[in-house]
Amino acid sequence: METNSIQATDTEISATVISPAELLEHWQGHRKLSRKVIEAFPEEQLYAFSIGGMRPFAQLAMEMIGLAAPGIRGVAFGDWTFGEPQLDSQTPPPATKKELLDLWDLVTEYIDHIWPQIPAARFHEHDNAYGMYEGPIYSLFLYLVDNEIHHRGQGYVYLRALGIEPPAFWDR
Amino acid sequence: METNSIQATDTEISATVISPAELLEHWQGHRKLSRKVIEAFPEEQLYAFSIGGMRPFAQLAMEMIGLAAPGIRGVAFGDWTFGEPQLDSQTPPPATKKELLDLWDLVTEYIDHIWPQIPAARFHEHDNAYGMYEGPIYSLFLYLVDNEIHHRGQGYVYLRALGIEPPAFWDR
Repeated sequence: METNSIQATDTEISATVISPAELLEHWQGHRKLSRKVIEAFPEEQLYAFSIGGMRPFAQLAMEMIGLAAPGIRGVAFGDWTFGEPQLDSQTPPPATKKELLDLWDLVTEYIDHIWPQIPAARFHEHDNAYGMYEGPIYSLFLYLVDNEIHHRGQGYVYLRALGIEPPAFWDR
Repeated sequence: METNSIQATDTEISATVISPAELLEHWQGHRKLSRKVIEAFPEEQLYAFSIGGMRPFAQLAMEMIGLAAPGIRGVAFGDWTFGEPQLDSQTPPPATKKELLDLWDLVTEYIDHIWPQIPAARFHEHDNAYGMYEGPIYSLFLYLVDNEIHHRGQGYVYLRALGIEPPAFWDR
């Protein structure tokens, strides 16, 4: 029985594009890189520098936090809110880079804690993310990650415009 | 037998984070948006405008093409090259926006043609992408998509700096 069970698991993984554990590693790898981009900004420019009327990177990073924290609860439990501290896509960034990074780390730990509780079948359930976006969970989740990559790429341009070398894209 | 087989397939999909067909749709959705970003640039700025010493968007878009075309062959067959026309990450963009978009469309059709030939188990095989990057196929493939989102996000900053409204991020 034990041998059969192990074989079944192997087959399942080999026929799967990506497992939940691999997807978590992928996401946290991206979040690690985004954290380095926050760190790369001088504090003043983090809050003040922008191009073409776009938001400063502190606000873009705060959007990542404000989507990720309720997002992991939504993906896992269907509850797209986060209460302590209250975080959503409209939450303004804290006043300092240190506090922003601390908030980032709190969410990182929270994600690691919640992720294993997501049932595999959950990724194909339909939900209404943040009360606004309808779709299957896998798609809503990828939107969250893609949105982070998109805004982080914008942070790279800000850093280059400031004469600062951004962290390597492949360095997760 | 037929009923059992249908049930097995349902279970398989419901326990899968994302199926190969869903992943193709996800990628082509992103590629559709990237094509709109190319279209949004005035031809001159597509080739000339840049910020902070970065590459103009024609070169960033050409990198997407030069990775996607051999990339889909690598993912499917383990052959990370593309021959007609010869395309790799170093291939310079064609001289006009029209030719760049035509090349984009050629790769779009090619991807749709090749994708169904990828065996599901392929995503967990290890390979050496472009003779340079070691890893499981799912990870190498996600890198390809993420790299496109990253550079496209940079194109959004270029457009904003030029006073041009970029296409909506969610519009795929």
